[in-house]
Amino acid sequence: MEKEFFPAGNMLYPIPAVMVSCAEMATKPNIITVAWAGTVCSNPPMVSISIRKERYSYDIIKTSGEFVINLVTEELVQAADYCGVRSGRELDKFKEMKLTPMKGKLSMAPLIAEAPVNIECRVKEIIPLGSHDMFLAEVVSVAVDQRYMDDKGKFHLNQTGLIVYSHGEYYGLGKYIGKIGYSVQKPKTGKKKV
Amino acid sequence: MEKEFFPAGNMLYPIPAVMVSCAEMATKPNIITVAWAGTVCSNPPMVSISIRKERYSYDIIKTSGEFVINLVTEELVQAADYCGVRSGRELDKFKEMKLTPMKGKLSMAPLIAEAPVNIECRVKEIIPLGSHDMFLAEVVSVAVDQRYMDDKGKFHLNQTGLIVYSHGEYYGLGKYIGKIGYSVQKPKTGKKKV
Repeated sequence: MEKEFFPAGNMLYPIPAVMVSCAEMATKPNIITVAWAGTVCSNPPMVSISIRKERYSYDIIKTSGEFVINLVTEELVQAADYCGVRSGRELDKFKEMKLTPMKGKLSMAPLIAEAPVNIECRVKEIIPLGSHDMFLAEVVSVAVDQRYMDDKGKFHLNQTGLIVYSHGEYYGLGKYIGKIGYSVQKPKTGKKKV
Repeated sequence: MEKEFFPAGNMLYPIPAVMVSCAEMATKPNIITVAWAGTVCSNPPMVSISIRKERYSYDIIKTSGEFVINLVTEELVQAADYCGVRSGRELDKFKEMKLTPMKGKLSMAPLIAEAPVNIECRVKEIIPLGSHDMFLAEVVSVAVDQRYMDDKGKFHLNQTGLIVYSHGEYYGLGKYIGKIGYSVQKPKTGKKKV
């Protein structure tokens, strides 16, 4: 296994590309697509998103202290791409992309109704890192599309058609490989190997 | 679009499940699989990984101040799953999974030779959040498998067979959808729409 060494760079992929919706008193709601996003704590549930100071949404989220992470499906990927390369200073992304802002549990930041999952977040801390500031946030509430709920109250996230972003390209989810822990389960009984 | 509201939870998916390798003076190198991982800054390139204090690797990374993020492919997903549910206190995961520790640019943390991408990181700050502590780190160097380099020095990450983790399940990458910015490009010329 021959290795080629590069200088430091961003190579942690595939990652979610998510539409982050936000609003504050003086402005229309906006959407910014973010790939530097992730879960950082299970309990309390916390996420981080990183945004450049120059971006229109930066001040909105800083002022309001709120944002919503909206997961992106194959149906929404074109809108997500658009919301990543266009600025809310110049146009109304909800209108342009025919997306519907919807009131959730937060005071100002709306959900994107068309997304199958909306993660409502309240900012706890803003950490300047360089090109980007990291918004550390607690999850306040999670809204999901009822069409993917079954009779037993289980939500089938992986039937919603989620996409990922990897090194400049968008992909759908592919082949199912296994459940967490499958490497130590017996095929039939589900018990751990001795 | 009817919504069901859940209490706060972890629903940001799909995400990378990465094998994090680490070592310090007194111990054999270890591997911990981490799903709470992401890029947090482009310049300088920075990542975060979150680890529970109880985990064996927690102290190793805290002591050494180093770790390596190794991307996971379909060939490596069984090892990654195993390294997520077993503890290095009890066994040698490199040996058990027939993986090869390889010296990179860091003093102690080894690369996993079999991974197509190794992201070598130095810890800048440890932020306690609750169940998990977040390790904020700068990327020091990135090593890639030369087999995926072309004649022009371009690395083809998305030909390596990367996997993602989504809501308890592992998936391969699926259908190619488009490049970043495709929503505002003309199909043929690649110029922006007016």
